[in-house]
Amino acid sequence: MKAVILAAGLGSRFKSDKPKVLHEILGKPVLWYVVNAVERGGIEDIAIVVGYGAEEVKKALGDGFKYFLQENPKGGTANAVLSSMDFWRNHEGYILIINGDTPLVTSDTIKNMQRFLMLVEEYEKVKLAGVVLSSVLSDPTGYGRIVKEEGTDKILKIVEEKDASPQERNIREVNGGVYMFYVPYLLEALFKIKPSEVTGELYLTDVVSYMVSRGYEVRSFMASDPTEILGINTRWELSFAENILRLKLIKFWAEKGVTFHIPETVWIEPDVTLSRNVEIFPGVTLRGKTKLSKDVVVKTGAVIEDSELGEGVVVEPYSFIRKSKVGAGAIVGPYAHVRENSVIGEKGEIGNFVEVKKSRLGSRVKAKHLAYIGDATVGDNANIGAGVVTANYDGRRKHKTEIGENAFIGSNSLLVAPIKIGNYAYIAGGSVITKDVPDEALAVERGEQRVLKGKGKKLLSS
Amino acid sequence: MKAVILAAGLGSRFKSDKPKVLHEILGKPVLWYVVNAVERGGIEDIAIVVGYGAEEVKKALGDGFKYFLQENPKGGTANAVLSSMDFWRNHEGYILIINGDTPLVTSDTIKNMQRFLMLVEEYEKVKLAGVVLSSVLSDPTGYGRIVKEEGTDKILKIVEEKDASPQERNIREVNGGVYMFYVPYLLEALFKIKPSEVTGELYLTDVVSYMVSRGYEVRSFMASDPTEILGINTRWELSFAENILRLKLIKFWAEKGVTFHIPETVWIEPDVTLSRNVEIFPGVTLRGKTKLSKDVVVKTGAVIEDSELGEGVVVEPYSFIRKSKVGAGAIVGPYAHVRENSVIGEKGEIGNFVEVKKSRLGSRVKAKHLAYIGDATVGDNANIGAGVVTANYDGRRKHKTEIGENAFIGSNSLLVAPIKIGNYAYIAGGSVITKDVPDEALAVERGEQRVLKGKGKKLLSS
Amino acid sequence: MKAVILAAGLGSRFKSDKPKVLHEILGKPVLWYVVNAVERGGIEDIAIVVGYGAEEVKKALGDGFKYFLQENPKGGTANAVLSSMDFWRNHEGYILIINGDTPLVTSDTIKNMQRFLMLVEEYEKVKLAGVVLSSVLSDPTGYGRIVKEEGTDKILKIVEEKDASPQERNIREVNGGVYMFYVPYLLEALFKIKPSEVTGELYLTDVVSYMVSRGYEVRSFMASDPTEILGINTRWELSFAENILRLKLIKFWAEKGVTFHIPETVWIEPDVTLSRNVEIFPGVTLRGKTKLSKDVVVKTGAVIEDSELGEGVVVEPYSFIRKSKVGAGAIVGPYAHVRENSVIGEKGEIGNFVEVKKSRLGSRVKAKHLAYIGDATVGDNANIGAGVVTANYDGRRKHKTEIGENAFIGSNSLLVAPIKIGNYAYIAGGSVITKDVPDEALAVERGEQRVLKGKGKKLLSS
Repeated sequence: MKAVILAAGLGSRFKSDKPKVLHEILGKPVLWYVVNAVERGGIEDIAIVVGYGAEEVKKALGDGFKYFLQENPKGGTANAVLSSMDFWRNHEGYILIINGDTPLVTSDTIKNMQRFLMLVEEYEKVKLAGVVLSSVLSDPTGYGRIVKEEGTDKILKIVEEKDASPQERNIREVNGGVYMFYVPYLLEALFKIKPSEVTGELYLTDVVSYMVSRGYEVRSFMASDPTEILGINTRWELSFAENILRLKLIKFWAEKGVTFHIPETVWIEPDVTLSRNVEIFPGVTLRGKTKLSKDVVVKTGAVIEDSELGEGVVVEPYSFIRKSKVGAGAIVGPYAHVRENSVIGEKGEIGNFVEVKKSRLGSRVKAKHLAYIGDATVGDNANIGAGVVTANYDGRRKHKTEIGENAFIGSNSLLVAPIKIGNYAYIAGGSVITKDVPDEALAVERGEQRVLKGKGKKLLSS
Repeated sequence: MKAVILAAGLGSRFKSDKPKVLHEILGKPVLWYVVNAVERGGIEDIAIVVGYGAEEVKKALGDGFKYFLQENPKGGTANAVLSSMDFWRNHEGYILIINGDTPLVTSDTIKNMQRFLMLVEEYEKVKLAGVVLSSVLSDPTGYGRIVKEEGTDKILKIVEEKDASPQERNIREVNGGVYMFYVPYLLEALFKIKPSEVTGELYLTDVVSYMVSRGYEVRSFMASDPTEILGINTRWELSFAENILRLKLIKFWAEKGVTFHIPETVWIEPDVTLSRNVEIFPGVTLRGKTKLSKDVVVKTGAVIEDSELGEGVVVEPYSFIRKSKVGAGAIVGPYAHVRENSVIGEKGEIGNFVEVKKSRLGSRVKAKHLAYIGDATVGDNANIGAGVVTANYDGRRKHKTEIGENAFIGSNSLLVAPIKIGNYAYIAGGSVITKDVPDEALAVERGEQRVLKGKGKKLLSS
Repeated sequence: MKAVILAAGLGSRFKSDKPKVLHEILGKPVLWYVVNAVERGGIEDIAIVVGYGAEEVKKALGDGFKYFLQENPKGGTANAVLSSMDFWRNHEGYILIINGDTPLVTSDTIKNMQRFLMLVEEYEKVKLAGVVLSSVLSDPTGYGRIVKEEGTDKILKIVEEKDASPQERNIREVNGGVYMFYVPYLLEALFKIKPSEVTGELYLTDVVSYMVSRGYEVRSFMASDPTEILGINTRWELSFAENILRLKLIKFWAEKGVTFHIPETVWIEPDVTLSRNVEIFPGVTLRGKTKLSKDVVVKTGAVIEDSELGEGVVVEPYSFIRKSKVGAGAIVGPYAHVRENSVIGEKGEIGNFVEVKKSRLGSRVKAKHLAYIGDATVGDNANIGAGVVTANYDGRRKHKTEIGENAFIGSNSLLVAPIKIGNYAYIAGGSVITKDVPDEALAVERGEQRVLKGKGKKLLSS
């Protein structure tokens, strides 16, 4: 089977310059979810009909798809399908047509629709002209209604709400905007249907009526979950769809052995990978290609982006780890900020108000309070005191800091890069270190402590 | 039309010393929402009946209203209306009477009730004595039931639950506590009804029964959303109402073109203003008169209070901006704290663990790590290193710091205010600067770095 | 009455090495909730049947219970009860049998079941063989159905879903897994029932059928809230149960006079104690034995663990207080981290990016910006400047710092412990203090500030 995804619309109710299918759900464009469902539904030959923001859409989706331009932005859905005709006209069989703004349709539904076509053909000996995905909604307002032949599953027509008779409005089975059509009949229909007299658009729903008028049979196929067919027409609906997809993803991981606390507050994106016995506390955000190993605990409000955490890592509240690796058994946070291209070694401890940037820290390195470690390499077992800063920027260029194994960097000291601190070196607290310190040496930069009796109290009282 | 708002009660189930109408929803008193709905419902002449905590209520609401004191705290709702008699007795027409603890009633409903009175008069030629807002609840427990004449819309009486017959208890249409009464009839009724034999209170609902007994017609008007009539009797109900109002506000902004992620976790107050294409991540708090320009992105958990953010500003996770302005294109956070009366210039960068207080920073100023900038002005393009502190307090007084354009303040240095650092001045890292530094100069305060071979390792092993 | 709690299962769908009853809800094992409901339901003599992870379970629950080992992990629920026979065989009366994985059953329900047995005996003169807790679910899928004699309350049998006829599947009253049996009949039944031919397990539900076949009467007792009977079979169900218990707890406190904002996002554990007029903002976490006094305000995202906060304390956003005490009127945060064994004195102010660890601070001490105070005692009214660090660790040992009353520690200065700073002592900013400073003295360690004209600009341009 081939698939045509309709992604030409602007989505004016989004009040955005960006095409609506590029608005994001959990860090991925709406359209990505549709493409993903189609591909995982077993259909690999996919055409995307673009229109508004065509170049942006192509760029976001990348190669691997055929793109067709709908030249008339007001052409309607059937016109959009016609735009891609070169892609499917010679295909002997069915094509899937799906709107690019229905991110909740699942790959299972797409598989089941294909199976349904096969089963009808095999057992009923009927070659269907088409099958239309539908849902039964408690409140069908706003959706096209599926009108069927009494007592059968055969669709007579799909009526838009505004054109529906009061009786038809009572129908609760609605059109999901996902169709599989038999190509020869589709082709015939597309050339026969007429534009709407009101809007001038060519509607795919008219294809169904045409087929029925010609004696071809079209049936509906009910989505297993009624929410699947929800389209995204406003940013409010976008939030709603995001919530549904998010909780589905969380449930998926929970059933794989991950504990979630207040899952309604947890953000997790589709490319994240979690292992058995991970525990996620409220308000946690996991983004991008983050990968958490067994027994990792991520506490309240921590944010992890494109990072890998080794077995048993504990991330304390409100820490932020981005594009980095954290070794097994390490403890990060609370309020630690591990930035891009950093490595925290096994059993490392990065504490509160510590920023690590583009640095590689060895095993068991401790930097537990108020420090900035940038563009540095730090050897195993080194201890970085409170208030230590690697001065990696001189106003013009960035420079590197090297700290040896077992080194001790006293509190509030400043390492002016480029600089190298040896193994077992000891930097006395409060020192400004501008020259390399050899292995095992003590370095100190500090003046005399002077004491002026009585002067303190005098300064404090005026 | 005139309006009388009943706000005399304590709300004992709140277990609070504060009058219940002053408990807050999204930073505003419950009563504020009622006043707001009445005003936006087109009624400007408003009296508020106060009782418990009268002075507090007056202070919270301010001038612009007439206040009347209900002297008998146990007088009942009709007694409360009587207290304000001087306000409305000579008014020829209707008055609105509304409880001060129903913050979910909308201005549209108040408008629609007025329209309803007019339409009935115009088309049915009936001058109603009153109209009572009602809702149909699936569970009416606890509410007064609206008893109507069979097959009509005419109210016969309103029965409190405890007085209701089993049959009456089955009625699901309940009293919303919002009335519009025709003044002459109201006046008559108020002087005729008797206090409850049980509680001694005078009930407004008895006004309805009296009117009906006299042949005056009272009808009910159904709220468009059944939750509108919810009263707030406990702090649990307060949370519930707050959630409803909050999500309504979020939906309002979403439909104006703002993207929200996990809206259920976002806090946004009524005076906040958002522009097109703003994006709000989970757990964000927007308070007071905050104003976000086009394309602003506020990430997870950030708190913004009474501040204005220019176009395209990005607020990274867990930042806190209060009573300040942030220029277009600036990046704030993560974990940045911009305090009262600060200005961050265009394209400025305020990074992690940086506090800015009462300071004005020019364009493109960077202060990216662990710094405290207080009572300072900083020129365009200046760079403030990690760990820099403006020592603005000497134990007795606060002093000011001036930093020139393009200045470079090396890491861990201390600027002892009052002090002035010139344009293009360079402060060497780790320096304590106590005297002004001229333009283009290098200033350094630092001792000799001494190195003691072998002493480091010795200190580390014992 | 005696109680037997069945806690032998692994819960394979948890995909965990830990027994399922030890997975946690709000910081307490699932089993804790069951034990708690039984005890508060008035039953103090409790046996726990353990199996998988027996030692872990015993360790978690502690003494005060009798433990019995179910040797055959595949023995079934009736076999589990048999394992504890020595505990109850000689008891003349009823025993409660309850699954250890039903944490939502309330103590009220357990009391009501006992009352029900008594009332039936007293008024109907019927000695019931047993009573089974049940719920009516809108979707009973997965639960055993309660089959009753038409038109009566007598149970005929309990049918597992897989064994149910289509007619039985339509029954919506389901088995809650909580039984009270009359011991003599139970004993007889347990020795008569046969293992399932399919699984080889002995089922407690067969005890019911046996009793009925012998003419003994068993009735069902409906839980007041249908969710009570939910068992926890997956981590997803664990999250769900945690949400229910959490919101119940929040509602309990709200009705006691605590205001919660967005309660759905608030985490509060069972041992927490709150006072009147406490106010809790979104995303707050209260853990362990935390105790908040009257008028405490905890703002967005703060985490408080095993700590006591005095009257009127304000905790600003994203602060973290652990195992500490905070005196009345103090302000903590935002972004403050008060760690284990600390005391913040009355009206103290601990500001942003400040860490306090194992330190005792007097009244009105201020440490408002970027500081680390560890292993210190600080006298009343002392002021700790921005960037101050107590260097409590020398690479081998921890040392103590003492700061006197009214002392002023200038910004970015370092106190190298062990050290003692006197009352009214004044430490000049940027000093490294290594020797004790007497009362009222000024101490300063600082070099000469040198200025090189023009050199700054040169360094900045290359």
